[in-house]
Amino acid sequence: MTSSGVKQFNQKFLDAAAHGNLDELKSLLGAVDTDVKSDRGWTALMFAARNGHVSIISALIEKGCDVQCMNSSGQTALEIAQFWNHKDAAAVLSQHKENVLFDQTHNYYSVNPLYRASDLRKDASALQALKKDGSSKFILFEEQKPFLLPPDGERRKYKFALFSCNQLSASLLDQSSVIFLGLETWDPSSSAWFAVNVKENGAEIAKKMYPEGVFVTPFPATMQMEGTHAGIFAEAHSILCWLDRYKFCATCGSPQTVVEGGYKQVCSNADCPSHKGVHNTCYPRVDPSLIMLVVSPDKKMCLLGRQKRFPPKMFSCLAGFMEPGECIEDTCRREVEEESGVKVGRVSYHSSQPWPFPATLMLGCIAYARTDVISVDKEELEEAHWFPRAEVAQMLAGKHPDGLFLPPKQAIAHQLIKTWVAGSSAHL
Amino acid sequence: MTSSGVKQFNQKFLDAAAHGNLDELKSLLGAVDTDVKSDRGWTALMFAARNGHVSIISALIEKGCDVQCMNSSGQTALEIAQFWNHKDAAAVLSQHKENVLFDQTHNYYSVNPLYRASDLRKDASALQALKKDGSSKFILFEEQKPFLLPPDGERRKYKFALFSCNQLSASLLDQSSVIFLGLETWDPSSSAWFAVNVKENGAEIAKKMYPEGVFVTPFPATMQMEGTHAGIFAEAHSILCWLDRYKFCATCGSPQTVVEGGYKQVCSNADCPSHKGVHNTCYPRVDPSLIMLVVSPDKKMCLLGRQKRFPPKMFSCLAGFMEPGECIEDTCRREVEEESGVKVGRVSYHSSQPWPFPATLMLGCIAYARTDVISVDKEELEEAHWFPRAEVAQMLAGKHPDGLFLPPKQAIAHQLIKTWVAGSSAHL
Ligand SMILES: [Zn+2]
Ligand SMILES: [Zn+2]
Repeated sequence: MTSSGVKQFNQKFLDAAAHGNLDELKSLLGAVDTDVKSDRGWTALMFAARNGHVSIISALIEKGCDVQCMNSSGQTALEIAQFWNHKDAAAVLSQHKENVLFDQTHNYYSVNPLYRASDLRKDASALQALKKDGSSKFILFEEQKPFLLPPDGERRKYKFALFSCNQLSASLLDQSSVIFLGLETWDPSSSAWFAVNVKENGAEIAKKMYPEGVFVTPFPATMQMEGTHAGIFAEAHSILCWLDRYKFCATCGSPQTVVEGGYKQVCSNADCPSHKGVHNTCYPRVDPSLIMLVVSPDKKMCLLGRQKRFPPKMFSCLAGFMEPGECIEDTCRREVEEESGVKVGRVSYHSSQPWPFPATLMLGCIAYARTDVISVDKEELEEAHWFPRAEVAQMLAGKHPDGLFLPPKQAIAHQLIKTWVAGSSAHL
Repeated sequence: MTSSGVKQFNQKFLDAAAHGNLDELKSLLGAVDTDVKSDRGWTALMFAARNGHVSIISALIEKGCDVQCMNSSGQTALEIAQFWNHKDAAAVLSQHKENVLFDQTHNYYSVNPLYRASDLRKDASALQALKKDGSSKFILFEEQKPFLLPPDGERRKYKFALFSCNQLSASLLDQSSVIFLGLETWDPSSSAWFAVNVKENGAEIAKKMYPEGVFVTPFPATMQMEGTHAGIFAEAHSILCWLDRYKFCATCGSPQTVVEGGYKQVCSNADCPSHKGVHNTCYPRVDPSLIMLVVSPDKKMCLLGRQKRFPPKMFSCLAGFMEPGECIEDTCRREVEEESGVKVGRVSYHSSQPWPFPATLMLGCIAYARTDVISVDKEELEEAHWFPRAEVAQMLAGKHPDGLFLPPKQAIAHQLIKTWVAGSSAHL
């Protein structure tokens, strides 16, 4: 290509980033240097940050662009996004920065930019004032289905439709079950977020404001959300499911009252033992569960299995809930041996992921097998096999000759498998 | 000392181990080599294993004796304990072997030698048969208080008083709330363990069988149990607390029925939504909680705080419950910043511990601070300070000049602090 040809391609690439033209940007990604700079030292990432194009930023980060590089004025993309007040773009960029700095896998559903400000939950008048504050943002649910703006030409992902208090009826906001999700930053004067269960004409109001909006069945639609909105969804959906299923006091059977911005319920029976001492009945549940990639004794293969409910040809890690009185490592050994007959020795924690259906905490581990004979418990699994690294790499890339495939990258199982295939991690 | 003097001391030491004389053994521990051998190549550990003296074995392991060494017949202490059928001794020795092999901290309350055999829970007739089997073992509780044999001259720790089905009334065993704890090994023909809540004349029967036995308030007495019995207590107590506090269906308020050996409850109302699909309301709760040792940016100090309810002069790690929608690392950063104002970067998982009051899962982490200015949230903590390593070592050893001290070694906080002070761990 001539030098002027290269220059032309580079300019097209930077323009695509500045205008949020994802298709054009992607068509050029192979042909240009992702970190190419304009005359003023601006990269494509910076142009996207300047105009708040989150999907462009994500595509560039995924391609491995230099996130920390600076323009001629000494600004990074993150600083540019913050200066122009593009909060979603800034959140994605600062999350990436943290991931790199802290050497952490941030799983899908775990990137929640809100500060939960739990002390405010106990201050009913402060919460009431925030509900009436014009800068507060409200997201809507109808029977645990979030009201979302679907993907469109520019944006490839679902995001929440946001409402202000003036757009919602007083009766909606007066419900005790309005959930206080948190503040946008640790600054007490920053904007608050709430989740509201619509009733009466709430759905009608929502549709009038956002004709394109939809109340969607959460799974799998929320697997395709903007990352930070997926994190906010995880918080809101878990609490809403808890309020929906835990309406009565488990200790005495009386109805419960929602308090503390949706984060606590108290029994309406004054004589109930739940009012004495501290017990967990009043608080939302979080169910710890283990998911583990089992590595063979010779470290060349990993154990993947199929549950009956999986789509055909999909394989994944073994998994199971923790029980009272267990520690992570022993639960891992028990689950793997029960389901596959394989004995596990060392267990290494990798990362965790909230799975908001309804409120699971997935604890991801790499487990090192001591034996390799498989004996599948047919109640738990349909089949399980050792897969060599090269074959797993094909499955990860969606290029397995028999069409076998793995859960998508939003699932922690995918991240565990990718870590092992990459083989470069501290966990190996 | 003369050679015959040394020989005499060594013989005394081996005799103390063989006879379970802990005081004498301890008085000699400084003066002799812990791995000294008899003519037939037997160490003190082997003599203790031969006669099932668990407290001697623990004292020797704590002193760093060679657990894997073999006698002239090629037997290890573990094999000797197994041959003579001293199950508790074998459990302690094999746990130690696993710890070494798997490079894992096994925290107190987490060493449960029983195999839970969860598939048996669903087989009501198999459970009924096990309840009537003469080899099954029963442990008793009265309102969540375990019936224990207190420490005596030989044994320094509490242990469960064990009953067989013939010693308990049929009405006690017929309760649906008899909890199936598991089998002694993965072999389906091994002995089963059950936990029973006594009623009617149960306490009387217990006292008649074991006049020295006591129903004890679980905390802190169970902190002084034989290690494997503490693990079994953790399982039983968490389930009993759940059955006690979750008697009614949270979804509709109707009474619940206990099924599956105490591990599930079903709503008695046939129209209840809890009968459709899978939800967590039917299953025991486990509450994940974080506990973290925060290391200063220069890595020379750690952050310890005091909750108001702590005994005077005790300091410990910061801690807090996880909320729905959080991952471990972000919860750690949130908790530390809320309670102390210190910002945390990298978070490294260390180990976990079941804390059965009622059913917490403690997730222990080492957290690396990015800032060092402390600003205590007075609602959460009374005070918090950075402590240099040398001072923390004094606290660990119980030799701090001002009498400051730390939680005992049974607490995961102690293990986290010890790991940091030792400084030799992979976690640093
Ligand atoms: Zn109640
Ligand atoms: Zn019900």
